[in-house]
Amino acid sequence: MEMITSTLQEELRDKIDNKTKPPGALGMLEAIALQIGTIQNTSSPAIKNPHIVVFAADHGIAAAGLVNPYPQAVTAQMVLNFINDGAAINVFCRQHTIKLEVVDSGVNYDFDNSITSKRLIDAKIGYGTKDYKVQQAMTEKEALSAIEKGKAIVEDIFQSGCNTIGFGEMGIGNTSSASLIMSAITGLPVTECVGRGTGVNDEQLATKIKILKEVYLKHEIHLSAGQPLSLLTKIGGFEIAMMTGAYLKAAELDMIIVVDGFISTAALLLALKSDKKIINNCIFAHTSGEQGHEKMLAYLQAKPLLQLGMRLGEGTGAALAIPLIQSAVNFLNEMASFRSAGISEKV
Amino acid sequence: MEMITSTLQEELRDKIDNKTKPPGALGMLEAIALQIGTIQNTSSPAIKNPHIVVFAADHGIAAAGLVNPYPQAVTAQMVLNFINDGAAINVFCRQHTIKLEVVDSGVNYDFDNSITSKRLIDAKIGYGTKDYKVQQAMTEKEALSAIEKGKAIVEDIFQSGCNTIGFGEMGIGNTSSASLIMSAITGLPVTECVGRGTGVNDEQLATKIKILKEVYLKHEIHLSAGQPLSLLTKIGGFEIAMMTGAYLKAAELDMIIVVDGFISTAALLLALKSDKKIINNCIFAHTSGEQGHEKMLAYLQAKPLLQLGMRLGEGTGAALAIPLIQSAVNFLNEMASFRSAGISEKV
Repeated sequence: MEMITSTLQEELRDKIDNKTKPPGALGMLEAIALQIGTIQNTSSPAIKNPHIVVFAADHGIAAAGLVNPYPQAVTAQMVLNFINDGAAINVFCRQHTIKLEVVDSGVNYDFDNSITSKRLIDAKIGYGTKDYKVQQAMTEKEALSAIEKGKAIVEDIFQSGCNTIGFGEMGIGNTSSASLIMSAITGLPVTECVGRGTGVNDEQLATKIKILKEVYLKHEIHLSAGQPLSLLTKIGGFEIAMMTGAYLKAAELDMIIVVDGFISTAALLLALKSDKKIINNCIFAHTSGEQGHEKMLAYLQAKPLLQLGMRLGEGTGAALAIPLIQSAVNFLNEMASFRSAGISEKV
Repeated sequence: MEMITSTLQEELRDKIDNKTKPPGALGMLEAIALQIGTIQNTSSPAIKNPHIVVFAADHGIAAAGLVNPYPQAVTAQMVLNFINDGAAINVFCRQHTIKLEVVDSGVNYDFDNSITSKRLIDAKIGYGTKDYKVQQAMTEKEALSAIEKGKAIVEDIFQSGCNTIGFGEMGIGNTSSASLIMSAITGLPVTECVGRGTGVNDEQLATKIKILKEVYLKHEIHLSAGQPLSLLTKIGGFEIAMMTGAYLKAAELDMIIVVDGFISTAALLLALKSDKKIINNCIFAHTSGEQGHEKMLAYLQAKPLLQLGMRLGEGTGAALAIPLIQSAVNFLNEMASFRSAGISEKV
């Protein structure tokens, strides 16, 4: 097995180096081409039927409005916006012929079935998590159920012929949950993991940090650093739990995983605790403007494709990176070689 | 006029801020949307019929092979590769429905007219420049002719309904010319402006720097810092001169200019000496892996969209950035507003 892999790597490297360009001149695209060939175990890889899945859920902690400048109701309103094709992720998916799936992982709203049945995957675990300032966010049963539903959703999408998937999210208050997960797993203090989310001001940021430090102590979060299920139960979100399962299944199915921003990467940190090999399938789309993301990426030794200062979530970074990933596959498959084009090599 | 501009800026800013996202959450795409709206003098801008134009020419200095690891013949071979759809720029333009035009600005080769007539714009100034180690690269008449041809080519493309254009180049040895132009205009010493081009090794790099320092002194290049025509005559290239004219005409026609890498930006430095307002039309595609490019961009206070470590030329960075520019226009035109989507604003 080791030898077969090594031979494929050499074949891919040769193929890349024999394209009509100086060695290395396509920079990160060459690394991506090598990675995708390795994931798909071929020197002629392909991106098939790419999807973005947006998992939406509410967070008990957001109801009081202390960590979030937008009211909790915005989660449901944005889900309707996704369904009506009005959000940024709709625009970018349409531009790049990416299929968008929206999942109700646990929004605090009853969507009208007649409107949403065709455009929304119903995987509701509950009407938002409990407020983890006062109690655990969810039961272990809920966390496990969310993980399983995440896996099932990815399995269905894979069965439709998709081999490339990115996960986005919507959930007012979910940067708080992601910050706590980050702190637990990276060992960085809470202060370094908390950012402005959708845009808290200085005073709100101080409150957010104060509350999350208290939550960290209350739930003894450091004791759960190695236990993703425990972290999800204590301070997780339904969308984050579902994404965790989604990552696990996507890697199991040898899919290319396009990792979006802060919350998506927090879910990946959890999934990696269950199976560290997932990282081999991950292409990091972008560095979010949310301040903790860069540190998460450094912890993972990840080099993302884009640095546009975006901090929107929804999978928007992943959607914008997919054309670059496609370019990596395209140059590998479509460019002439020095020999086929009759071009002189380096002297 | 000042007031009208200011009103349009406010209108654009309002439109961007009322999209269903936190203010600023689309990062650099918001700045690009504002810039394009300003260039086109509308709050509903559009990218029309985008083009990449690759200007190809040979350099006398490359004949001896002291500054370039690939032989001079590769310029013509790569032009044929462009015509046969085998190069990276072909792959990326095809992926993004960008029209590719290839220009013989002065390649040291007679292309067979029957093969190339439909795919190559003949604007040949000569069979490569003279070797500027021993004499001037071109006559002033040749430089002026190249600038005029560059303008005419852009005018023709504009007339075909194009409003967005990027310039690429192919010319074995042309990083040497670009390094000297950079040194003259930025005032940075030659050593800081010279890089590995298509991939010289350490010894070749030392030789390249030594030769270019001698050339700098021989032609008293510092005396021409403010005179683009003089720089082109002394140490320019036909493709660089043609690009200089192309930038001037594109800005005059209010086109969006997508600036590619090291050589393209060197030509822009020359064009800016003639008309500094051109910068308002420029969107910087990427930071090249060629070491001097980052310093050129810093000199211009430019913030490029991509950092992929690419250093291929041909306009490949510009081609990969065009979808991001399109995304900026698309979100501005297609996203719902808070009001239209019925979404609660920040509290």
